[in-house]
Parts: sequence; structure tokens; C-alpha cells
Amino acid sequence: MRYHKISDETIRRLPVYLRGLHVLAEQGRERISSRDLADFLGLNPWQIRKDFSYFGEFGTRGVGYEIKTLIRQINKILRLEAVNKAALVGVGNLGKAVLAYPGFKMYGFDIVAAFDVSAGKIGKKVKNIEIEDASRIASLKRRNIRLGIIAVPREAAQETADALVGAGVKGFLNFSPCHVTVPRKVKVITIDIAMDLARLPYYIPAN
Amino acid sequence: MRYHKISDETIRRLPVYLRGLHVLAEQGRERISSRDLADFLGLNPWQIRKDFSYFGEFGTRGVGYEIKTLIRQINKILRLEAVNKAALVGVGNLGKAVLAYPGFKMYGFDIVAAFDVSAGKIGKKVKNIEIEDASRIASLKRRNIRLGIIAVPREAAQETADALVGAGVKGFLNFSPCHVTVPRKVKVITIDIAMDLARLPYYIPAN
Repeated sequence: MRYHKISDETIRRLPVYLRGLHVLAEQGRERISSRDLADFLGLNPWQIRKDFSYFGEFGTRGVGYEIKTLIRQINKILRLEAVNKAALVGVGNLGKAVLAYPGFKMYGFDIVAAFDVSAGKIGKKVKNIEIEDASRIASLKRRNIRLGIIAVPREAAQETADALVGAGVKGFLNFSPCHVTVPRKVKVITIDIAMDLARLPYYIPAN
Repeated sequence: MRYHKISDETIRRLPVYLRGLHVLAEQGRERISSRDLADFLGLNPWQIRKDFSYFGEFGTRGVGYEIKTLIRQINKILRLEAVNKAALVGVGNLGKAVLAYPGFKMYGFDIVAAFDVSAGKIGKKVKNIEIEDASRIASLKRRNIRLGIIAVPREAAQETADALVGAGVKGFLNFSPCHVTVPRKVKVITIDIAMDLARLPYYIPAN
């Protein structure tokens, strides 16, 4: 089932809601109003109501949303219901930070493979994952791993993307600060941390 | 000068445009139409025209936008005209990756200080920056550093945020996958890489 009318901006916010809802559920909360959820996340309540209205009404006026139902609905929309296996390419500082990152499990992600080109790294284990030779990326197809994370130097980003696409990977995060070209049916999300930093000064009052 | 009506979503896209425009300028291009810029960035031309219309018309129909003018305008809006000094807290794998990141210079950022609590790291140099004891964060005030990057373990995120705020830092990127509480006038952008990964399956065709 696809919800074709959901905008990219709404899709961008759904994981934010999801994280907040998980925290609230852990705290033992069962229901929440859009206003309280907005306060909790530092967002606008009208934005939350608008986003949730895209995929039907499951809040009750005066009672709010049932948190578990909301989590289930958002997981369904984002297709996070099953565990999503992912492969990392590039086990430098950033790659190691990705492997050590505690936040993936909440969204049902499991990084199950890691690749590098450096002979000194291949065969070593990081966080219980044995680093494989990057030439083995093609094996992802039969291992049914369809998500990738690229954390290689900029110069190697395009060839890594090509290798992942060739191995049947359908979507990946690209941490290399450069544009990579992929077939239209493959989804790439490029994360440029400098770009996030670039948004900060706008919000900072002048001296 | 503030442009109060510019939405957060537009502000989020401006650095994306900026990066593309810098690449085009490096390639020797002088002008570009919204359509060509959209193709280059994989975005919608109407979105680009709408975003640019927020801050006045500086494109000419049939001739397009002058790239250098556009870069200057976006830099002005984002307040990236002067060099922005930033401090990093936490020199683990992620922090080291941040220090080695090649993309900051394009936006006029310079990471000039790095802090850690580990005695084994303090005094060592990473990318020409000497790691200082985290207890010295307070010195940021007189060093006039008003941007921060938090790359510490989750448990230490709030106290790090408090220390930065106490040192007069007005905005920071938070790489710890948790919410930190700051005074209303301080801007925090939390980067949760799992959250970006969580958007991918939505775009991937089912088997």
C-alpha cells in the first residue's frame, strides 16, 4: 500500500514523531494530544495535525491520539514494520561511528554487513561485524540486503554507489559530501553535515 | 536584517541550492535557469522559484539567475557572509570524522576548537587542532565562538549542551540521538542519522 499524496516534507517529519512517541511510550504514556506532542517535540500542533490527516483520522477530539496505534500507523507508512537489513561501505572514523550508533534499533534497522578496501581492516571485527573486502559488495543481492550506507571518501562515492546499485540495493544514505548519480528507481539521501551547520547562523541573533 | 516570513523548510533547502551553485560556479557557469538548477539538484523547478521568490526577484525570465549574485544573496540570508567559528565537543570516531570533514569551508565554517574529557586525548592534535579539556568550554565566550557541535555519548549530551549555553554558544548541531533542553533563544539542530535512514524504505518499491 502506498500513500502517494504524502509530501516529502511530511515523510521527513514522520521519523521525528516516531522517535518522540517511542520516548513517551517508554515513559508509560498511553495517549497524547497533538498540542502536547508538539510541545514535547518543539513543533507546531497544526503541522502535526496536518501531517497526521494525510493518512486518515485516528485521533479523537479531546482525548488525543493513542500512542501505540500512532507508532504502528507511522511504521506502516514508512514501511518499518519488518526489520530492515543494511550494509555499510567504508569503515573509517565515520563508518565506525555509524556502527556504534545506538539509534538504529528503534526504527527496526540492523546493520549486518560492513565493507572496506583497506587490507588492514578486512577480516577485523567492529561491533561484532566482520569487515569484508569491498569487492564482495555484489554478494548483497543473495543476502537480500537492500539498504546501504556510504561512508567512503568523496572520490570513491560514485563507484561505491554503482557497486551498491549493481548489487540490487534500492536505497542508501550517502555521507560523502557530493552528488552521486543513480538510476531513477534508486533513492539516495545525501547527508551533508556542513549543510545542517549552514542553517544555524540564520537562527542566531546578531550581536 | 531578518526575513521573518521565510519558512524553516525553505531555510533547509537554501544550503542545498548553495552547494549546487558553488559546484556550477567552479565549472565556470555564470547563469542558470530554475529548470536547469532543478535538474542539476534533482528538485522541482517550481519549488526553487517559490523559495527564491521569498527574498525578492533576482532572476530574469528567459535568461535565468546570475550564479554569483544568487550565492551572495543566499549567503546573506543565511548569514554566512563572515567566517563562522565553531567548537567541537567529543573527539571520538564521530568527532574525528567531523574534524576531517571537507565540506565546511564552502559554507564559511571553521572548526577552531575541540574538547574532550579523556585524559588520553587532551593535548593531542587532530587535523591541527589541539584537543582541550572539556572543563575549558567556558573559554569560548572570550574567544567569541558562538557555534558548537556536540558529538559526545548520549548520557553526556545535556551537560555538554548546558556548558555550551553557559559559554555563550547561540546554536549547535547535536549528533547525540536524544533531545536536549536549551533556553528558547538558543537554536539546536539534532542530527539523528537513524532518522534519515528511516525515510528510505518508504521510497523503495516492495518486492
